[in-house]
Order: sequence, then structure tokens, then C-alpha cells
Amino acid sequence: MRYDIALKSVTEARARIAPYTRRTPLLAPPALRGDLPPQLRLKLENLQVTGSFKARGVFNTLLQLDPDQRERGVIAASGGNHGAALAYGAWRLGIPATIYLPERASADRVARVAAWGAQVIRHGQVWDDAHAAAVARADATGQVYVHPFDAERTLQGQATLGLELLDDLPELGCALIAIGGGGLIAGMATAIKQIRPNVRIVGVEPSGAASMRYAIELGRAAPLPAVRTIADTLAPQAVCERTLALAQRYVDEIVTVDDAHMVAAMRWLWTECNQLVEPAGAAVIAALQTGAVDVSSNACPVALICGGNAAVESVFAAYQPR
Amino acid sequence: MRYDIALKSVTEARARIAPYTRRTPLLAPPALRGDLPPQLRLKLENLQVTGSFKARGVFNTLLQLDPDQRERGVIAASGGNHGAALAYGAWRLGIPATIYLPERASADRVARVAAWGAQVIRHGQVWDDAHAAAVARADATGQVYVHPFDAERTLQGQATLGLELLDDLPELGCALIAIGGGGLIAGMATAIKQIRPNVRIVGVEPSGAASMRYAIELGRAAPLPAVRTIADTLAPQAVCERTLALAQRYVDEIVTVDDAHMVAAMRWLWTECNQLVEPAGAAVIAALQTGAVDVSSNACPVALICGGNAAVESVFAAYQPR
Repeated sequence: MRYDIALKSVTEARARIAPYTRRTPLLAPPALRGDLPPQLRLKLENLQVTGSFKARGVFNTLLQLDPDQRERGVIAASGGNHGAALAYGAWRLGIPATIYLPERASADRVARVAAWGAQVIRHGQVWDDAHAAAVARADATGQVYVHPFDAERTLQGQATLGLELLDDLPELGCALIAIGGGGLIAGMATAIKQIRPNVRIVGVEPSGAASMRYAIELGRAAPLPAVRTIADTLAPQAVCERTLALAQRYVDEIVTVDDAHMVAAMRWLWTECNQLVEPAGAAVIAALQTGAVDVSSNACPVALICGGNAAVESVFAAYQPR
Repeated sequence: MRYDIALKSVTEARARIAPYTRRTPLLAPPALRGDLPPQLRLKLENLQVTGSFKARGVFNTLLQLDPDQRERGVIAASGGNHGAALAYGAWRLGIPATIYLPERASADRVARVAAWGAQVIRHGQVWDDAHAAAVARADATGQVYVHPFDAERTLQGQATLGLELLDDLPELGCALIAIGGGGLIAGMATAIKQIRPNVRIVGVEPSGAASMRYAIELGRAAPLPAVRTIADTLAPQAVCERTLALAQRYVDEIVTVDDAHMVAAMRWLWTECNQLVEPAGAAVIAALQTGAVDVSSNACPVALICGGNAAVESVFAAYQPR
């Protein structure tokens, strides 16, 4: 598939979503320890509204709906973060929303969506099952399906994070970005490479859901036979032709990490800078810790912490007033 | 007591500690909801090295020790955060460290200190008991006692956060700052008011450990009959004459919050911006949520999130690789 995103559309998206989203912090050294490259910076997109980058694509989409579409409402399937962002965006703009989550989505993920008044429907084993059901319902009801990655406006929204990162750090040398459906890395890589072709873009997938690597090997966006990972927001069975095309063109390499390494990386982020994130948010750190990616020779590497929505209720429950 | 800190000493402290500490992010709006003033910004000092502002005073002290003092080593009593910062700073600079914690310090607090190789001694019911024992040991051994708040260099270090906040936000109108022993608010208020006398400085204490309000009422730094709060790092029985003198001169008002409100504020910080913090770090948010402080008429209020070291082991334990 020949596919590209015009830089101008990303610049426009950035201005469009600015009143509704945050410019997230770039945490600079010093690091506490020397166990990762000391020049590593962390882009803390887990501080984005609703806890992940998903709010960018969501607001870029919702803000371009016409009045009739707004009235019919929006619908999507989500591993959790896109659903939370869409529910929030819809609440913020007064649009009805329906979110499909896989049946085994955690109570925490369900609550995060329901908190904003969206209708939650749990369906299917994996994201792809929930997606098929949500698309069928959209066809029947006329609700606008807001795809988490296979949609131009979604990709333009995620691409704004590439522009923002170049503004944060003009000397950016390398960006590590997690891959689920591929929308984040496709958008960011497209924006960054069109401006700075020499920046190295590294994708990180769970070894149990390496859908982009699989698609690149096959040359098409085919579903994995199975997915198995703790990183529920990185677990679609397949990427899409759009994100595959952009990744083929703009991503330099893709590595994989195991679940246990992601949990170890979650602990590292907590110890290093008191950021508690979900496994997906720690995947890029795991890729550095395991040596899957070596950035020691790069002067300005950035690890993109894409999402922070861990299940933390147990923490609050343990704090009982005295 | 007549006591003041020269601004020049704070500027020097800032340069001294810069290689070892972080400039922490100031999180700007938009907020998710309108339940707190929409112009509120959060200074996320929970992202400081070792998770609290304490690293500032610690490095300002350690970096001025002479070789003989470094060899004898350092000692302190701590509610947890000062101990973690001192243990880290000592490890970083190759200095032996001994940390006294109250007996009921959580396993998490002990681990955070021990992680950096410091000797941990649990002693007494409250910080003041641990402090007395640590001072006695310092007298006997010649170790350098690094006081968490009643020391010039500690206060100069915490004051650097005032300078940093004015750089972050030159139009700062109001700062909400939690009070334990009073070192943070005394340092910050002194730096801010000497530069911008019209900035409103509001202190926030646990209702069960309101040692600064008590000292101001009495006119001296006397111990409370008892302390009882979930906010273990805000729980000294008494402030000191130094912090009292600076608070009398530079702090505009002091309010109190209950434990239950701090836990509710912890949840708010998680929902709003995925920051998981200890009760002390959420106290300033509780003061806004309960209406104890009204900043609605202030154009640029900042809530200082002073520490993030919550006990989160239960979160990691729940993520089991698939």
C-alpha cells in the first residue's frame, strides 16, 4: 500500500488538539544509577490526559465531526487506553460514546472508561473480536467508529507527539516507541523522519504480540495466530496496512521484549523517577535493559513512555486513615 | 529567634546541587475536570531523584563536607524521604551512611533506604525518638548528623526549589506547600518572598500533626502532645526555631487536612495525571478539595507535590507474566 501523511496535516492537528491535551514533560538526566545510558531522556506521555497518547488521535478526530455525527455518537473497540481517551473526549465535547473492551479487560480498565459516562460492552477474547462487534454495531446504528490506529485522523493526532518531541529536544538522535496496532510509531516516525531523516526510530513489541514484525516479514498486515502478553494495550492480533506502510518507510528496526522484562522495567521506572506505568509504558525501558536495543553511541536517545494506566487500587486500599 | 537565609547562598546551592538533582516538571493545564481551579499548575517534585525534595538539602550538605567528615560518614533520623535521599547521596558520593527510622516505618520505607547500602536502624515511636537516638550516636561516633530541617545547608537546599519555581513560572501568584518539620516551606518561602514579596505562600499540615500551627500559636517550637497521621513524612512532633522564624516571616497562612482527605487527593492525582504519590504529596490537593484554601481568584497558583514514595509493591505483584 502506498500511504503517507502530510506534515501540514500534523501541524494543523497539533493546533487543533492543543486546548484539550497536555504538552507532556521530557525528563532529563541525571539518572539515579548508571544501569542505562546516562544520556537517556524519558518523554512522559503517561502524563497526557487520560494517561496515554491516545487522547491526541481522539481529539483530532472528535473535533472534526460534523453536528450530525456528534449527535449520532461515537463507538470504538479498545484494549483500554483508546477507550478511556475516547470516553473522556466524548464527555468533554458532549458526545455519546460506546466502548467495546475484550472480555478479560481488567475491572480497572472498565472503570476508567465508565467513569466518563460511556456505555461499556465487554466482548470477545482479544481486541480484534471486540473490534469486529463494534464495527458491526456502528454499521447498524450510524455511530461513528473511531479506530484506535487504522484511521487518518487518528494517525495525524499521534503524529503530533513527534513534532512535540522535536520541539522538546531539537537534537533528538533516537526514539524508542512501543507498538500495538502501530498508530503511535507510524504517526511519530512519519512526523520525525519528514523533518529529521537521520533520527533513528526503534519499535518495541511484546514477544507474544509481535504483530508489526510479523506483518513486515509477510509484507502484509495479517493476524498473528495468537497473542499472549501482559501488555494488554499492545495486543491487537494485526496491525493495518496504513501503519505497516508507514513503519516500512520510516521505522529503522523493531525489537521484542518478554512480559517478565516489562514488569522489571515497571519497577525500574518506579525506582528511578516514581512513575508507575502499565507494562506497555515500560516496554521501551525493557528493550534497553535486556540489550535488545543499544543506544550507547547515540548522543540524544529518548524512551517514549506511552501509557501509565496500571491497576493501582490496592495501593489506595492500603492507606487507612489513622 | 532572628533568623534568615541570604538569597546568594541559595543561588550558590542551586549551582552546587544541579549536577546531582533534577529540574522537575511543572504540569500545566488543561485539567481533566473542573473540580479544582482550572488555572492550577502542579510542580511535580515527586520526580526528583529519590522521589522527594529532600535530595536538594542532602546534596547541598554532602557536597560541602570536608574529607575528614566524609570519611567519618553521615547519620540522620528520617520519616523516610530524607533517609532515602541521604542514603542515595552518600552512595553517590562514596560516603558511609546510617539512617534511623521510627519503628513503625513501613517495609517499603526501610527498603528504599537500604537499597543504597545505608545501615538502617529502627528506633522509637515517632521521628523525634529516632532523632534523639541518632544524635546521641553521632556524638559518640563523630559521624556528621545531617538534620532533615533544622540546619542551614538543608534549608538552603530546599530553598532552591523556590528559585526553580519562579524560573518555571515567573508570574507565580500562590504556592501551596506541605509542612512536616517546616524545612521545605521555610526554604521555599524565603527564596520566593525575597524576590517576589507579593506571592501568597500557603502551608498545609495534617490535622493530626499540625506542629507549625502549634508553634506559631505558642510563639516557640514546642512538641505537640501527640501526632497521629497517615502522612508519615509530615509527622515530626515539633518544628524548630529556624523553620518557625522563617514561617512567621514569610508564610501567609497555614491550613490543615485530615487523613481521609489526603487519600482522596491521592486518588485525584492518579486520575488527573497518573501520578501515584504518598499522602504527604497529596496534602496540598486535599487543601484545595476541602475548600481549606481558596485560590479561585489567583491567576497563577501552584500546588507543590513534595513527595511520591507510596508503597506500591502490591501493584507489581499483581502483574504476572502470561
